[in-house]
Amino acid sequence: MNEFDLIQSYFNWEITDPSIELGVGDDAALFNLNPGHQLVTSTDTLVEGIHFFKDASPSDIAYKSLAVNLSDIAAMGAIAKCFTLSLTLPKLDKKWLEQFSSSLKESSKLFHVNLIGGDTTKGPLNITITMMGSIEIDSSIKRSGAREGDDIYVTGDLGSAALCLKKIKEGDKPSQIELNSLNKPIPRLELGSALRNLASSCIDVSDGLEQDLSHILRASNVGAIIDTNKLPLGDSVNNYVKDTNDWSMPLCGGDDYELCFTAGKSKRDKISALAKNLETRVTRIGTINSQKELEVIGFSGMRSSYQHF
Amino acid sequence: MNEFDLIQSYFNWEITDPSIELGVGDDAALFNLNPGHQLVTSTDTLVEGIHFFKDASPSDIAYKSLAVNLSDIAAMGAIAKCFTLSLTLPKLDKKWLEQFSSSLKESSKLFHVNLIGGDTTKGPLNITITMMGSIEIDSSIKRSGAREGDDIYVTGDLGSAALCLKKIKEGDKPSQIELNSLNKPIPRLELGSALRNLASSCIDVSDGLEQDLSHILRASNVGAIIDTNKLPLGDSVNNYVKDTNDWSMPLCGGDDYELCFTAGKSKRDKISALAKNLETRVTRIGTINSQKELEVIGFSGMRSSYQHF
Repeated sequence: MNEFDLIQSYFNWEITDPSIELGVGDDAALFNLNPGHQLVTSTDTLVEGIHFFKDASPSDIAYKSLAVNLSDIAAMGAIAKCFTLSLTLPKLDKKWLEQFSSSLKESSKLFHVNLIGGDTTKGPLNITITMMGSIEIDSSIKRSGAREGDDIYVTGDLGSAALCLKKIKEGDKPSQIELNSLNKPIPRLELGSALRNLASSCIDVSDGLEQDLSHILRASNVGAIIDTNKLPLGDSVNNYVKDTNDWSMPLCGGDDYELCFTAGKSKRDKISALAKNLETRVTRIGTINSQKELEVIGFSGMRSSYQHF
Repeated sequence: MNEFDLIQSYFNWEITDPSIELGVGDDAALFNLNPGHQLVTSTDTLVEGIHFFKDASPSDIAYKSLAVNLSDIAAMGAIAKCFTLSLTLPKLDKKWLEQFSSSLKESSKLFHVNLIGGDTTKGPLNITITMMGSIEIDSSIKRSGAREGDDIYVTGDLGSAALCLKKIKEGDKPSQIELNSLNKPIPRLELGSALRNLASSCIDVSDGLEQDLSHILRASNVGAIIDTNKLPLGDSVNNYVKDTNDWSMPLCGGDDYELCFTAGKSKRDKISALAKNLETRVTRIGTINSQKELEVIGFSGMRSSYQHF
């Protein structure tokens, strides 16, 4: 099977967005932006053995490849629109491709994004998606907007994905809820988009709260204090921290794909209402200050961060 | 070194395009399009052992990763603007990264494109670039526009990269000119852009003339006849074909990154003038007809195509 046939068979789906003039099947894709909007783009790669296990289900890999990229678009407050897929495969495994392709198609529908192009190559399994979205000019939520006195919030729970990964690595059997937190993260697209006129800064917590909040602080040239007693933890992470006094999962654990954002104190009511309206857990965990560092209080245990290299 | 430090050290360069509001360093990049323009995007991946040898120079890999993506933008007649880079590396090799980064930066300057974002991950060497460009609405050159009676052209020479690869694989030492054809393809950006009002269809000849021209024919629902006597061959390919009667290199050899395009007969003078003006070899090799297939004449030897899987 040549590359052309492979793409035709598995990755040439109907385009549902009329602003996309040309999708898969030419040298490049073509699409239009609404007037007054700008492009938002993000790229994330998943590698076998690093971001998922060798025996991971192709459906989970496809879903997650899309979700982690959507999460970055959400963190800008933008609307996701379309994406390119670069798929490096060790061999032509039709069963694998069918499952991957079918899950990616289904997930694309769920999140209202279209596949517009890509590349398939032979080699060790590697999935790179570049997601494109749009946002009204001057509306994006950057990392650099946090100001002294702002509240700090996070969505969802922290640490569940990291704890699930730890259990699998150590041979324990995680629950289905824990597996979902690792394999089926929900990109906070609606909330991100609704935060455009409320949040002063926002980031996707994919490398752990401590590291990602530090990026906001550095970009905004401010400091912060957060209280571990306020961190939103699911039951299993809560139990784990109580048992071990190890705070690595909620503070440094990656793969949560929740949003961490800041907003002025005057926005508290609006943010509460938004959270309720979108049925999304949003928790206030600390305050931005004028120091140049991140202080973590209510905490006496240990923690350690993931290093990419 | 964490991912953040790696990106800061090697991939956070000054943005030279004022329409790019945000480059490397946030969840996503932001940029504006000129009014009346649309987005053009393309993704290509290079994998160690498939697209380059294990001992390939990091400079060559960086250059080529960019060039192959630019070639797709050129084939649409568009202007390249910016790109994301996803780099999967087996280990943190500072010397490798320095050479790769420095060559990518230099090549980016040469082609007037900006790096706006990306991802670095650990794993088998894999470089995925997504190139973004822009073009006036309704001006792009698609594969589907070829019409009966149109002339068929190609730029440059055909088969040199494939012959060079064959020599290396068989233990022969290629000349510097041959190595350049493999490692330093020149994306035909100026010519592609100038063809916007002249060419009826265009494709990037990266999988071999025969296969890529067939994509034009299928998309345009036409046929073609090309004459091998007219194919532009460099000296070494010419000699090889004479010696072996094997036409695989110029007809089916990949990696040439030349443009194959069609244009009405009335455009001949303008195309000649353009080729002269841009000092680019442009050769008329055949004609589009109403058959539904590609006929290759002037040819009695053998040929075989590369299969990706």
